[in-house]
Amino acid sequence: MPAWNELLKPPLEALRYLSPFTIKYGSDEMHAVWSEKSRALAVRDLWIATAYVQMEAGLVTQEQYDDLVVNREKLDIREAYRMELDRDYSRFTGHDIVAASREYGDKAKIGGSIIGKGETSEEPLSNSEILLTHKGIDILDRRIVSVLTSLVSPIRKYKDLICMEWTHLQAAEPTTVGLRLAGYAQDLLNDLSILRFFKTLILGKGIKGAVGTSASFTHMLEGNPMTAREMEDKIMARYGLTPALITTQTYPRKFALMAVTANAFMGQSAYKFANDLKILQSTPFGEWAEPRRRDQVGSFAMPHKENPNNAEGIKALARGLAFHVAHMWFIAADTTLGRGLEDSAGKRSVIPESFLAADEILVRMDRMVKGLQIREVPIARNLAAYGPFVAMEIILSELSRNPNVDRPAMHDSLREKARTANEAVRRGEPNPLQDLVRTDSELTKYLSTEEIDSAFTSVNKYIGDAPERCHEMADIIEKELVKTT
Amino acid sequence: MPAWNELLKPPLEALRYLSPFTIKYGSDEMHAVWSEKSRALAVRDLWIATAYVQMEAGLVTQEQYDDLVVNREKLDIREAYRMELDRDYSRFTGHDIVAASREYGDKAKIGGSIIGKGETSEEPLSNSEILLTHKGIDILDRRIVSVLTSLVSPIRKYKDLICMEWTHLQAAEPTTVGLRLAGYAQDLLNDLSILRFFKTLILGKGIKGAVGTSASFTHMLEGNPMTAREMEDKIMARYGLTPALITTQTYPRKFALMAVTANAFMGQSAYKFANDLKILQSTPFGEWAEPRRRDQVGSFAMPHKENPNNAEGIKALARGLAFHVAHMWFIAADTTLGRGLEDSAGKRSVIPESFLAADEILVRMDRMVKGLQIREVPIARNLAAYGPFVAMEIILSELSRNPNVDRPAMHDSLREKARTANEAVRRGEPNPLQDLVRTDSELTKYLSTEEIDSAFTSVNKYIGDAPERCHEMADIIEKELVKTT
Amino acid sequence: MPAWNELLKPPLEALRYLSPFTIKYGSDEMHAVWSEKSRALAVRDLWIATAYVQMEAGLVTQEQYDDLVVNREKLDIREAYRMELDRDYSRFTGHDIVAASREYGDKAKIGGSIIGKGETSEEPLSNSEILLTHKGIDILDRRIVSVLTSLVSPIRKYKDLICMEWTHLQAAEPTTVGLRLAGYAQDLLNDLSILRFFKTLILGKGIKGAVGTSASFTHMLEGNPMTAREMEDKIMARYGLTPALITTQTYPRKFALMAVTANAFMGQSAYKFANDLKILQSTPFGEWAEPRRRDQVGSFAMPHKENPNNAEGIKALARGLAFHVAHMWFIAADTTLGRGLEDSAGKRSVIPESFLAADEILVRMDRMVKGLQIREVPIARNLAAYGPFVAMEIILSELSRNPNVDRPAMHDSLREKARTANEAVRRGEPNPLQDLVRTDSELTKYLSTEEIDSAFTSVNKYIGDAPERCHEMADIIEKELVKTT
Amino acid sequence: MPAWNELLKPPLEALRYLSPFTIKYGSDEMHAVWSEKSRALAVRDLWIATAYVQMEAGLVTQEQYDDLVVNREKLDIREAYRMELDRDYSRFTGHDIVAASREYGDKAKIGGSIIGKGETSEEPLSNSEILLTHKGIDILDRRIVSVLTSLVSPIRKYKDLICMEWTHLQAAEPTTVGLRLAGYAQDLLNDLSILRFFKTLILGKGIKGAVGTSASFTHMLEGNPMTAREMEDKIMARYGLTPALITTQTYPRKFALMAVTANAFMGQSAYKFANDLKILQSTPFGEWAEPRRRDQVGSFAMPHKENPNNAEGIKALARGLAFHVAHMWFIAADTTLGRGLEDSAGKRSVIPESFLAADEILVRMDRMVKGLQIREVPIARNLAAYGPFVAMEIILSELSRNPNVDRPAMHDSLREKARTANEAVRRGEPNPLQDLVRTDSELTKYLSTEEIDSAFTSVNKYIGDAPERCHEMADIIEKELVKTT
Repeated sequence: MPAWNELLKPPLEALRYLSPFTIKYGSDEMHAVWSEKSRALAVRDLWIATAYVQMEAGLVTQEQYDDLVVNREKLDIREAYRMELDRDYSRFTGHDIVAASREYGDKAKIGGSIIGKGETSEEPLSNSEILLTHKGIDILDRRIVSVLTSLVSPIRKYKDLICMEWTHLQAAEPTTVGLRLAGYAQDLLNDLSILRFFKTLILGKGIKGAVGTSASFTHMLEGNPMTAREMEDKIMARYGLTPALITTQTYPRKFALMAVTANAFMGQSAYKFANDLKILQSTPFGEWAEPRRRDQVGSFAMPHKENPNNAEGIKALARGLAFHVAHMWFIAADTTLGRGLEDSAGKRSVIPESFLAADEILVRMDRMVKGLQIREVPIARNLAAYGPFVAMEIILSELSRNPNVDRPAMHDSLREKARTANEAVRRGEPNPLQDLVRTDSELTKYLSTEEIDSAFTSVNKYIGDAPERCHEMADIIEKELVKTT
Repeated sequence: MPAWNELLKPPLEALRYLSPFTIKYGSDEMHAVWSEKSRALAVRDLWIATAYVQMEAGLVTQEQYDDLVVNREKLDIREAYRMELDRDYSRFTGHDIVAASREYGDKAKIGGSIIGKGETSEEPLSNSEILLTHKGIDILDRRIVSVLTSLVSPIRKYKDLICMEWTHLQAAEPTTVGLRLAGYAQDLLNDLSILRFFKTLILGKGIKGAVGTSASFTHMLEGNPMTAREMEDKIMARYGLTPALITTQTYPRKFALMAVTANAFMGQSAYKFANDLKILQSTPFGEWAEPRRRDQVGSFAMPHKENPNNAEGIKALARGLAFHVAHMWFIAADTTLGRGLEDSAGKRSVIPESFLAADEILVRMDRMVKGLQIREVPIARNLAAYGPFVAMEIILSELSRNPNVDRPAMHDSLREKARTANEAVRRGEPNPLQDLVRTDSELTKYLSTEEIDSAFTSVNKYIGDAPERCHEMADIIEKELVKTT
Repeated sequence: MPAWNELLKPPLEALRYLSPFTIKYGSDEMHAVWSEKSRALAVRDLWIATAYVQMEAGLVTQEQYDDLVVNREKLDIREAYRMELDRDYSRFTGHDIVAASREYGDKAKIGGSIIGKGETSEEPLSNSEILLTHKGIDILDRRIVSVLTSLVSPIRKYKDLICMEWTHLQAAEPTTVGLRLAGYAQDLLNDLSILRFFKTLILGKGIKGAVGTSASFTHMLEGNPMTAREMEDKIMARYGLTPALITTQTYPRKFALMAVTANAFMGQSAYKFANDLKILQSTPFGEWAEPRRRDQVGSFAMPHKENPNNAEGIKALARGLAFHVAHMWFIAADTTLGRGLEDSAGKRSVIPESFLAADEILVRMDRMVKGLQIREVPIARNLAAYGPFVAMEIILSELSRNPNVDRPAMHDSLREKARTANEAVRRGEPNPLQDLVRTDSELTKYLSTEEIDSAFTSVNKYIGDAPERCHEMADIIEKELVKTT
Repeated sequence: MPAWNELLKPPLEALRYLSPFTIKYGSDEMHAVWSEKSRALAVRDLWIATAYVQMEAGLVTQEQYDDLVVNREKLDIREAYRMELDRDYSRFTGHDIVAASREYGDKAKIGGSIIGKGETSEEPLSNSEILLTHKGIDILDRRIVSVLTSLVSPIRKYKDLICMEWTHLQAAEPTTVGLRLAGYAQDLLNDLSILRFFKTLILGKGIKGAVGTSASFTHMLEGNPMTAREMEDKIMARYGLTPALITTQTYPRKFALMAVTANAFMGQSAYKFANDLKILQSTPFGEWAEPRRRDQVGSFAMPHKENPNNAEGIKALARGLAFHVAHMWFIAADTTLGRGLEDSAGKRSVIPESFLAADEILVRMDRMVKGLQIREVPIARNLAAYGPFVAMEIILSELSRNPNVDRPAMHDSLREKARTANEAVRRGEPNPLQDLVRTDSELTKYLSTEEIDSAFTSVNKYIGDAPERCHEMADIIEKELVKTT
């Protein structure tokens, strides 16, 4: 739970629009990654790593370095914002990193003069953004693993719980609850491997200066035994990132595209899961339901009404993830030459909100899977209502082997019975098809009542190798989890 | 029906990808607008209009003009393509309009030399594209009007056919079939007015030369009593378009954005209609269904299975319309200065396919509305199953007026009954709530059995002013249609 | 300027992501529309309007109504949020409108019990959202009018300031600065008429209850001379909205789609304007520049470097507007039956951020137009460099009239000269073409030096009727403005 | 070159819209993958593989299998389409796979009865679509490798060709032509690894029947030593695909999303490359140019005008790739339960057109890289014009080390000189800054003329470690290529 009671103080809520991504969505943990404080400290950490390596190169003193370290947490974001944005302020700079640097210098009087020595504003900005992206990915990785873990048990438990499968929202053939869950698990396994793969490609800008040549650092280090490239490698190692070989002023925005794309892949799986669940939870289907909070009295006059709030919320959040991909594509594609500023306004909200939405989705999905209600009564009711029609296929295939059958006549007769049965089902009555068929004197010339009954009974175990596939999927997840932990 | 049997001749299908928008979607009428022949003739017509006006200005002879008119239909698209695309051809030009002009000149030997006198290739290209856009809009306008006309009768007929309304796919309160249909009609009325409004804003490029100054025409007409502006006005009037006051080399791509936006608005309405229908047609809901073709035997072993093919198809096609808007937005936005060629590849498919998809959607929607199956038996079944819960609200509001009622106890008792009733409904049994309530000795101290029964009965006419609203909507449509015809 | 210094108080910035749309973009005026306070008051105003009309119907007392009015401004958003979101709070509701209603009731002890009498939560939610949308549209309307007003003077002033027009970013033919500005004006006039047209279609939900039938109000008003429809009309009139004839539980999301679409149309115009400006401001083009702040020292070592911050920012913000349209399309399209909650998460940020971005864009654009730097020296330099090539066309057309000219030979000779001239221009030298041509002994057989010089000179007035079109556009804007005010 | 002259036969072009993806874009090789014939044969191949394995299982005779093999190429697509689409045809089926099966049966009289024995239509449809996707990926893989190969030589050649880098389209600091090219190479390397990674995740549906349980195959193989799972594995192995463990009726649409996403990643790189090139090719920049065809005379009167047709075309095609991702996301996300038909209309064009566009982009890009014109004269001209401003930074940093300098006064003096120099540059004159600075009597008190000249000279080698990075990138590509071949 966010410390929501601290979030809204007058006059903030009276003066400004507040994003739902500030107030409502995302775990505290994910917010901690994308908070203003976290961004500011990640910038400072790049400067601290820089100072450390430059100390090694003899460009910075121990005292200066220590001063930066000691004052790392002394952060006055309000002052930094003021220096960036308030044109009436005497210390106005109009520039976020210049302001941040001066604000840091206010605290670190000794180290202040060597903050980001020789670096452009994109050394801290680009690298810190990638660092936070990695942190965000790590959280989402754990969340996907958690949902997968939560899926193992119901996949095994319901591996052979037969239920209708619906194609085009029409009752089709039976499947099992476990197999359906295994499908969601397979989706998430794909997403997880994509997320992990992309993480390996998302590299830091490194320390390459205004246009990526390191010319200013080469110049600065003339005569120094440390080369610009060595300085870059050391700073990045200390910061926890691998630098890309080639960048311009910024990291290639393709890296940000990778992150939001990975999130959207997961979002696609979650959307399908949530959409399926919403349909299965609808009053007339009634087979599955998302968990209800213990304190959730529900509409007591309307106990049948259980709004799929979480499923609908997931769908809504996931859609946003899809558009973030297209949006970020244009941000990355329309980066002209060394760089433009067209990336800024979009990136500021798209990247964090992609992670916050993905985070919210996965937290909810985990809760939903853990508390998923599988309602065996309506499942059986639907199977009883529509399963008999599946038996017709089996009977027809039996009949087709007998050359003596007057097929057209038999077909007409069976079709008539199926129609009659369907009318009854539509009125809400039990499906009378089996009775209609087994009492047909014409049909029983070719098939015994036992054979007919057997066809109808066989529908209830018409699940092929679904249970085996469920176990295999559960095994794969467990192997994957072992790898992870 | 397309002359599909003429479409595929070897080796076309063996060599090239064929778009579903060539083979499957769109009426013959809409294809006739966007066919290669139609495009070519619209280009020639601009040249003919130009020649006519230039004849008036003394720049073209009657003989030249007549020659163009006489040869208008003599069209060899293959030759024009060859001159445009075949680099090994001696007459290769690499330019569509140059090729089209020469191919016309092959036929019109006398008028050939004055084709598009003084004009750039964008005079015929830009203006013809707008002309075809207007033609496409006119077809869609008629189609929307047709769907609206088709809706009038069922809106009136079902104005008071009570049925459950579903929110979050949960049974909520009753509505009427007519009111739901009236909602779709209102959506389409909005779309129609948007389409018509945009049409008034979509103007021709006019005759303004390479960068929109008409400089070349001013130069050409030096000493002529006809001014460049007069020539533009006369050509456009003859061509059937109003010219925009300001253009660069091309018409502002914002006009194309308007067209695809109008189509997407309609698509949004159709998507909602189709999505609702698919759900209502799903086996467990079962209330509505799209029409079946007379010759459609259906899965006879599975008479309950009626795939909502048209609804699903509409959803699929409508989605494309939404992305066309975003795509065209970037085409229009990223037009640098006088123009770029970034508009070309996208525009070539986006504009026609937006119209073809919209056309296909409306043709299907009209068929669906005309043959819409409203199944009163399942509608009544669902109302019987879930309507009693609505009655609970009425009873509770009655009880709340009586100060003697021990409300917590009464609430507990009623909640218990509702839960029992809900369990029964989930098993597929009739809703026993009314019986449970009317036989409760505690409750009948405050409400008579008649009052209780009356609450349950009143649910069946709990439709407020839905019928009046239906009539009003039907009246509005009819008034609109009178305006149209 | 936002009261930024009040925005960030610990621990908000330490704990939560803050959207750039909270901190950076949008005028105070637009934020005031979409602030939490504004939303809360718009909800309360719907309840006040309801109480007023219900007082007229005898359902509410004057004292109750007055109490609501008197306590309107006593708003404790923090408490309302707590009741909505804090599951550990004894007054937790989990519902925004229930919480808002109770929080209002805390203040208005007398009127508290009749807040939103008979209404669902969507009466205040849906209607207030439309009301704020109208307010947002009104602000944007004024801003577009302001930009248009700002454009009138430079359109007239630069109507005949000749400059190169660039197609494919290649120097093409001359245009005028005024004509280019008139094109942007025409775009915005289109956008303004779209915005105004859509506003007429964006109607309130009205007062129609849970599924749009007004059944609960019909029930509530049984025996009352006021009908449900009259109550709706009166409340809406008092609230300042026209109700839609048909709605479900909410207003049709198509209305929200209209609003974000209108904003995206404007954004498309702004994107093109900004993109053109960025190119024209690029160091090598150098013809236009956005205004510099008086206090903007600029990179003093690099006086040539003037980053087009505002143009790039506009492009970035405008892109978001395009994706909002596609996003909202799906929100509107995927509204199933009576409603779903899939609209919520997206709508909460998409609608306000569409308005805030549009607002920021227009504020910047107005500033840019007002302070636009038109640099006549580089404009003349580019015309001098590339204009002579335009003269070649004129010379060639003159030569083509003379049957004695050996055209192939002449063409070869001229092409050679043009190549030579182009090489010189590429080296940064003045274009020598005129000299090369006028001293060609072969050519001067057919054209006098005066005629040749005249061709080169004529380029400098090769602007056709651009000035007239500029005046016409300026007149149209002024007429439009008169209409507006 | 497509056999364009066979493409358009009357009345096709007279009757139907033809997609530019049929006529204009994509190599013959890629068209061969997505042609109707290719699709039909891939379907037949699945049936042949099925027959082979079922022959092994004793369900099909050698004669039947052979008959299918022998008649594989006898394909009458027109007849199949007629059976699918022509409602007036006696053999009308309304179903693509049923029609294809019967049309195959017309040719293979012996094997006709066992075509796709026991399979649903999605066994051939789903698996063939994945097979073609793999083929498409393989072509694109080769094309990316080809572009990378083409990049190696210019990256090495121009590793130290110094040129201005532009940020915000403003002259910034120098970079090298090779480094810029190396950046494009790095982008494509990322894209290649994404494409290859995704290919490993894109699996076949396998042979799992109507809802993914293999129930019908289990039933069919009762008593047979071959299990349904073995049959699936064998058929898939023969077909050349690995089956996914879990599917419903179709392969998970997430796989299609992977394919179009990989293509869009490449498209993003190509867009940036093309956009950069267009700007660099613009008349005033003039540094790079795409190759001109040998036979391309060009506008001879306008030799400076070289439209970047291919760059603009790439941008246009690449944009489409981005929207395909969002479109396919919704197709994948909105697949309800077992399946719906909402995937169909979109998938039919999105998948092939994604591959055709990617193919066209890469073919063009390869041609552009191979023939890229690097114009050293304008490169040097721009460096001479704006490089001196870079020297100012070096001078200032030198001065800042001298405590005796009156910095404010010196700064004012230098700023004045820079402004004067900038005015000269804007007029098109050589940059006079070096002269202005070296003759300043105040400045030369602190820096010798040699030191000043040296600062200006050093700009011309201010490229840091760009050459090393170029070599490293070229080495990586070559290593990658070795791996590939």
